[in-house]
Amino acid sequence: MEAEIITVGTEILMGQIVNTNAQFISKNLADIGVSMYYQTTVGDNARRLKKVVVDALNRSDVVILTGGLGPTEDDMTKEIVAQVMGYPLVLYEDIAENIKSYFIKVGKEMTLNNLKQAKFPENCIILENKCGTAPGCIMEKKGKAAILLPGPPKELIPMFNDSVMPYLEKINNTKFYSKMIRIFNVGESAVEAGLIDLIHNQTNPTLATYASDGQVTLRVTAKCKNYDEGRELVEPVVNEVKNRFPDGVYSTDDESMEQAVEKLIRKKNLTLATAESCTGGLIASKLVSIPGSSEWFKEGAVTYSNDAKMRRLGVKAETLEKYGAVSEETAKEMAAGIARTSSSDIGISVTGIAGPGGGSEEKPVGLVYIGVSYNGKVYAEKFMLNGDRNRVRNMAAMHALNIVRRELLKNE
Amino acid sequence: MEAEIITVGTEILMGQIVNTNAQFISKNLADIGVSMYYQTTVGDNARRLKKVVVDALNRSDVVILTGGLGPTEDDMTKEIVAQVMGYPLVLYEDIAENIKSYFIKVGKEMTLNNLKQAKFPENCIILENKCGTAPGCIMEKKGKAAILLPGPPKELIPMFNDSVMPYLEKINNTKFYSKMIRIFNVGESAVEAGLIDLIHNQTNPTLATYASDGQVTLRVTAKCKNYDEGRELVEPVVNEVKNRFPDGVYSTDDESMEQAVEKLIRKKNLTLATAESCTGGLIASKLVSIPGSSEWFKEGAVTYSNDAKMRRLGVKAETLEKYGAVSEETAKEMAAGIARTSSSDIGISVTGIAGPGGGSEEKPVGLVYIGVSYNGKVYAEKFMLNGDRNRVRNMAAMHALNIVRRELLKNE
Repeated sequence: MEAEIITVGTEILMGQIVNTNAQFISKNLADIGVSMYYQTTVGDNARRLKKVVVDALNRSDVVILTGGLGPTEDDMTKEIVAQVMGYPLVLYEDIAENIKSYFIKVGKEMTLNNLKQAKFPENCIILENKCGTAPGCIMEKKGKAAILLPGPPKELIPMFNDSVMPYLEKINNTKFYSKMIRIFNVGESAVEAGLIDLIHNQTNPTLATYASDGQVTLRVTAKCKNYDEGRELVEPVVNEVKNRFPDGVYSTDDESMEQAVEKLIRKKNLTLATAESCTGGLIASKLVSIPGSSEWFKEGAVTYSNDAKMRRLGVKAETLEKYGAVSEETAKEMAAGIARTSSSDIGISVTGIAGPGGGSEEKPVGLVYIGVSYNGKVYAEKFMLNGDRNRVRNMAAMHALNIVRRELLKNE
Repeated sequence: MEAEIITVGTEILMGQIVNTNAQFISKNLADIGVSMYYQTTVGDNARRLKKVVVDALNRSDVVILTGGLGPTEDDMTKEIVAQVMGYPLVLYEDIAENIKSYFIKVGKEMTLNNLKQAKFPENCIILENKCGTAPGCIMEKKGKAAILLPGPPKELIPMFNDSVMPYLEKINNTKFYSKMIRIFNVGESAVEAGLIDLIHNQTNPTLATYASDGQVTLRVTAKCKNYDEGRELVEPVVNEVKNRFPDGVYSTDDESMEQAVEKLIRKKNLTLATAESCTGGLIASKLVSIPGSSEWFKEGAVTYSNDAKMRRLGVKAETLEKYGAVSEETAKEMAAGIARTSSSDIGISVTGIAGPGGGSEEKPVGLVYIGVSYNGKVYAEKFMLNGDRNRVRNMAAMHALNIVRRELLKNE
């Protein structure tokens, strides 16, 4: 089966955003063995879009279009594809009702152009949009399919995972079983070097790595007849990867670091509190992003100033004076202080220099101390992180969560 | 002048890497007013690549190709483009010498296929590669130009900046001037409905909208002879948009909401502190992402539990008991409490139900109160936000920052 992608959007042609959707879709298609020979980006222009759609439907079995499903006049993907396929658009009353109730719920007036998002060809497959108002759809004709998806990644990704992958797997007539292994604090090239024999010998399952934000995700995918066969093929490889990176692998279930930490905290029935300086609430925010975190996350303190460190956490003035705010001693007192004042089992602290300003020869930008207080023990670890302000902050938050994770695994 | 990009590389079609080159080139072209209507990605396949090159040279003045300039058999971009243009390739002795000395320098043996990188049409413009072995080139014919660049960004970017931009600015004779207007709390369809006359009558400047995370960005772009003319064309439209959405427009300089808030805080020489419940540190984290925020951001409290609200912020037990944690009264006491305990000029608080659990008929998921304490005044606003947990949290954080912004503008 051959597929291609048409990205519709002037913002891509103008270079305002990077086309991450195309990569996301391509990668998923490659994983299930669908071939792709073309990707095209075109703007919100009827004549050019139409020409591109005609060419694509001539040469490929499946054409996936992203963008141009919104309510405005610029959004014309659905109209053009339906026109090329010869399908008139009709109003779907139930979808129109959903859109109306959405506006009532958010207390805003619905302008009439919003109903454009409820018009589709009869007999097309509607793809529910759980994260926005514009549904996607699949239009089929003469053994060809056009799959229309919204442009924003946060709408496209769940729609693709929930509806498009099962559709493609069905028409592609193969089943796939995948496991996503998450590895932290090991570079992508080191992961690849450590698995080179597995990568070179791969036939079924296959291994693919991709890296982002200091993490490597390894996807192990088996072509299979059913779930059980898939699992039998994939599990030994997953275990081998865990053996080779015992410290690095933090999840084999596609979880984020905060989810991995949450699991352990819940299992041990503990509570946690955070004291953050340079990360500025990022760790708390990551933890609070998990539903139900109020049950174990007690509180967070963003103690940016020395005054706040003393007043909120009981860090000693002498410590700040003698060692400075960015020091092992301060990190330890912060961690102990937040655990004590919040009556939490675990206290975690970060103090560092995120830059671009504030660095010195002795304490350069990227220097970060992470403190932990747990089980009557308090210690801090030193890190030298590189990158811009927000990379340093994000990596510090990841390391802090990883330290908690390792600490909680110690007595397993 | 019209240009388009052809990306040559199977690794893009397989989703192994994101096509950041296309964005980099597009953005630079948009900045100098070169129009772009197409971007195509194609693999290392002679027949398909040739077809794509022929189509592109038929419809655009300038075709920029990236990738496929290396020494291997797979690399065929230069060969195909030269063939389409009817130019035979000849060996450039000086480039061959450079490649040979490169290999001597790095102490590796040069395989013969490397000399492929020294073959170009006679009379083409060679683009020096300061960061790799494969030079780029520009082939011109009948008023059209094909610009061939290497795939790795670290080779492409300097080559583009040093050689391609000056070439394009020379052959393109127009300039562009743009302003980015950011609008919050007005839907994309409402923005468009409110500007429909401007959008329909647009010729110069042009207007384009795009939406993300509850915001709309409006780009106003004028084709002009110089900066002053551009500004004269764009400013009246920017002012008209501000008049139509006086509450919504928070920046006309492409700033984030937190940057807009920072500007006002710095201008008035104030300090700020945050008390967050459901946003869980997100507001603090957004503010701390701005370099130098330690100068005005005093501290943040993530007071998730009732206990923390009382202990850290002095929220009264009676208030929590009588009105609940998610209430106007609690929001007000939280805002006043964080301002007082941190000695900050501005205290901002959020308390709400982000979901998916925790909602009731009386207090459903999405209910959020935002409190402000400033200038001897304390008040709270109520919001009903929709979406999943993290959308509710993000929108609550945006609203909180927006309230601070509006408050600081009141006495302007």
